[in-house]
Amino acid sequence: MRKYFFFFFLSFLIGQLVSAQSPRVLTIRKYGNQNAGNIINEFSTFLSLPNVAADPAGQQKNAAFIMEMMNRRGIQKVQLLNASTPGVPPVVYGEVIVPGAKQTFIFYAHYDGQPVNPAQWAKELDPFQPKLFSNALDKDGTPISFPANGKYNNEWRIYGRSASDDKAGVVAILDAYDAINKMGLVPGCNLKFFFEGEEEAGSPHLDEILEKYKSLLQSDLWVICDGPVHQSGKKQIVFGVRGDTHLDLTVYASKRPLHSGHYGNWAPNPAMMLAKLLASMKDENGRVTIKGFYDDVIPLSPSEKKALDEVPSVDEQMKKELGISAIEMPGVTLSEAINQPSLNINGMQSGNVGKMASNQIPTYATAVLDLRLVLGNDWKRQQQKVIDHIKAQGYYITENEPTDEERTKYAKIIKVISGQDGMNAQRTSMDLPIIQKVIAAVKATSKDQIVLQPTMGGSLPLFLFEKYLQAKTITVPIANHDNNQHAENENIRIGNLFDGIETMGSLMMIK
Amino acid sequence: MRKYFFFFFLSFLIGQLVSAQSPRVLTIRKYGNQNAGNIINEFSTFLSLPNVAADPAGQQKNAAFIMEMMNRRGIQKVQLLNASTPGVPPVVYGEVIVPGAKQTFIFYAHYDGQPVNPAQWAKELDPFQPKLFSNALDKDGTPISFPANGKYNNEWRIYGRSASDDKAGVVAILDAYDAINKMGLVPGCNLKFFFEGEEEAGSPHLDEILEKYKSLLQSDLWVICDGPVHQSGKKQIVFGVRGDTHLDLTVYASKRPLHSGHYGNWAPNPAMMLAKLLASMKDENGRVTIKGFYDDVIPLSPSEKKALDEVPSVDEQMKKELGISAIEMPGVTLSEAINQPSLNINGMQSGNVGKMASNQIPTYATAVLDLRLVLGNDWKRQQQKVIDHIKAQGYYITENEPTDEERTKYAKIIKVISGQDGMNAQRTSMDLPIIQKVIAAVKATSKDQIVLQPTMGGSLPLFLFEKYLQAKTITVPIANHDNNQHAENENIRIGNLFDGIETMGSLMMIK
Repeated sequence: MRKYFFFFFLSFLIGQLVSAQSPRVLTIRKYGNQNAGNIINEFSTFLSLPNVAADPAGQQKNAAFIMEMMNRRGIQKVQLLNASTPGVPPVVYGEVIVPGAKQTFIFYAHYDGQPVNPAQWAKELDPFQPKLFSNALDKDGTPISFPANGKYNNEWRIYGRSASDDKAGVVAILDAYDAINKMGLVPGCNLKFFFEGEEEAGSPHLDEILEKYKSLLQSDLWVICDGPVHQSGKKQIVFGVRGDTHLDLTVYASKRPLHSGHYGNWAPNPAMMLAKLLASMKDENGRVTIKGFYDDVIPLSPSEKKALDEVPSVDEQMKKELGISAIEMPGVTLSEAINQPSLNINGMQSGNVGKMASNQIPTYATAVLDLRLVLGNDWKRQQQKVIDHIKAQGYYITENEPTDEERTKYAKIIKVISGQDGMNAQRTSMDLPIIQKVIAAVKATSKDQIVLQPTMGGSLPLFLFEKYLQAKTITVPIANHDNNQHAENENIRIGNLFDGIETMGSLMMIK
Repeated sequence: MRKYFFFFFLSFLIGQLVSAQSPRVLTIRKYGNQNAGNIINEFSTFLSLPNVAADPAGQQKNAAFIMEMMNRRGIQKVQLLNASTPGVPPVVYGEVIVPGAKQTFIFYAHYDGQPVNPAQWAKELDPFQPKLFSNALDKDGTPISFPANGKYNNEWRIYGRSASDDKAGVVAILDAYDAINKMGLVPGCNLKFFFEGEEEAGSPHLDEILEKYKSLLQSDLWVICDGPVHQSGKKQIVFGVRGDTHLDLTVYASKRPLHSGHYGNWAPNPAMMLAKLLASMKDENGRVTIKGFYDDVIPLSPSEKKALDEVPSVDEQMKKELGISAIEMPGVTLSEAINQPSLNINGMQSGNVGKMASNQIPTYATAVLDLRLVLGNDWKRQQQKVIDHIKAQGYYITENEPTDEERTKYAKIIKVISGQDGMNAQRTSMDLPIIQKVIAAVKATSKDQIVLQPTMGGSLPLFLFEKYLQAKTITVPIANHDNNQHAENENIRIGNLFDGIETMGSLMMIK
């Protein structure tokens, strides 16, 4: 009986230690509150630097800016890690060696952003002129000036490309270290910093860089700071990611645009052909009908299933928030859905619509398919399943514009660009001792539940760290879930940025 | 026997008169050859005036330019016929009273053009900077200067918006009259000229103008100069037009764009929803599956069927030219196809494609449907059949952006804009005496077969002339069939412009 009581008391004590906010976290919070003005000023300048793949010079400026940030913070060995191809956005690296530390953590974030189409952003916004709002735009947020007194409200938002994905990650990591340093604390482990510039382009040179700088990049754990917290607003730790790959499809019809009156219902319509092809890929219940699409999937382990069960349900909240009353696969929860491979249309276009519409039969119709993968899937194999399906619909498949000869020979012609931008899924075991410390450190920052998510719906090239460095990874996201990342009107909630600084700081204190 | 011989001789004589090119036509041809430089200069200046619906001031400049053209030619009563709404592009009117003439012909063309998206035009082209090429662009045409000596080759092309649709019509009519006048000929009938400025916008004020100027517009026949000659290159007379109407469809999903990783295959994808909806509208043989879609159609009369049989088959030629090896409805010829109602996708869009593509689930997907109608169809009834079909697929239909309440209530939401731009089909009997004269006059311009086409695939608001003026109409098109009208890279073949002047001139000589 006493024995049981002892265990009960011990677990109560541990519970208090990890679930309450630790003094060190409160110290970091204090730093954030006192320095919010400077932190946001620097962040805002950072956001005003264009960081899209189409503008390599802009990417270089971002890298230079991060180097300055690191130098100002006294970080050592600040340098660019370059791929062999000139012009590739470099990785920005730096490190802090802590006397007596037994472990080394590498903190990862990326400074590049998704492409922008300014015309799609709200008219008061410019992707590279960060603006402060009193709340989210769709929650009646109104523009406010950056406050001169440095007092920020947690519900305010900053709008701009990469405000959350993932310049917030870079800033949270560097300001967490700044806070530790300035407040007289000492990190518990050696720190390395690794800020990538090609994540949104599918990290095409990450493998090369990891291999080239293998010895510099030795560590006990990579902490990936990217993606959103749980939709419930609770912090989360993510143990894996879905893989991702794409297919660009273009269906061809007449070589020149045709008058829809003079040729309508004689000449083939590529938009209708593409619609039929895409429609053939899913059934009425949102299940992918492509042969073998759900094969290869490695089921979740019992502990992962248990964690999944404890993930708070946000389905009804999300449906309300997104203004939808039905989901794609009736009866499948969001948590279940992201543990399956998916097929999505990212974009689709043929001819013109709206005011630009004209009475024509377009010459082609195009769509971009996004395939998400889970553990067990191979991205090339998954692409091939889709290609085989297209072939089975009677299409001749080419990788180029069709030649006149091909046009004569084949009734249905499609260009399929499968590219080389695929990545497989990855999952880190929850039971490793170092991962248990990470869980405890994140729990130390909040009185609330910390969501343990077996797999993130999104994708990061985490398999590369395993492949080239035999490294462990853990993902600790900080952005608000309604951040519009990858689309127009991207934003970060102020509270999430400062929570992120605390979370990163708590992880840096792990011994 | 002698009686039969007499009839044989008489019909031989008539055949010679009508099938050989008449001296008057040769006189007009001579004028065209001698004045090609001036004709093209004026045409080219005309083409450089932007004439899109989005630019009302530009439309006014076009109207003013036509008035000057008429005044230079000594045409009488030159004036603008205005709708009651200010800013509506006016009709340009003028007339020539011929002493002793017993009939009045009104020549119709339109000066407005389809919307332009300059980015879609070939890079060496600008829609409103007409350029001369040695041949069609897709026949290896190269740019050439407008010749100082005024010698033009029939195969050359002028590229620019409305080069064929339908500023060529305006110019052919006015230059035909100029030729008659300058060469000392006298028109056989009174001439009226009617140049519309809103045809490509669906002629929304034509009814009002026809009613308002009813007495001014009295005539025995309207000659509509619009559309292309037969694809065989032969001239054609068209006795009717298909009707036309549109539906703008927008399927809604999440209120904000979503990351396709974090929400992919949980949140509904509007592009997939739209693809499925569009795909449901046609079967694998290109037949429209919408209930009752082919009902109401009045079959062709025996004489129309005979004319249709004599239309030269261009299906194989067109397939080769367009680079297609299959047509939408297997076994149905082009001539047959345009005598049926049709459903076409003019444009379709969701999210972004190509370099602008991003990993998102779009918030909406939109498409523009074009419905062509034949005699017997009513445009509102035809729209309703499509709307009923959409409803039968489980959609809630609205005419506005969905409200939050509607989003909560309905799983599938679509905005359908049916507009008021519909027009029904029209057909004039081949057997009327005045129509027989028109056939003879066109035959007099060519040794080649004149194609008699019961129905044009395209649409013109000809039912309005019947409705408001109880007038007869006949369509005599002049543009080359491969003119890219309604799309990028619109052009006119030089030979077609001058043939058009002869044809219009021959019609003006009808007594």
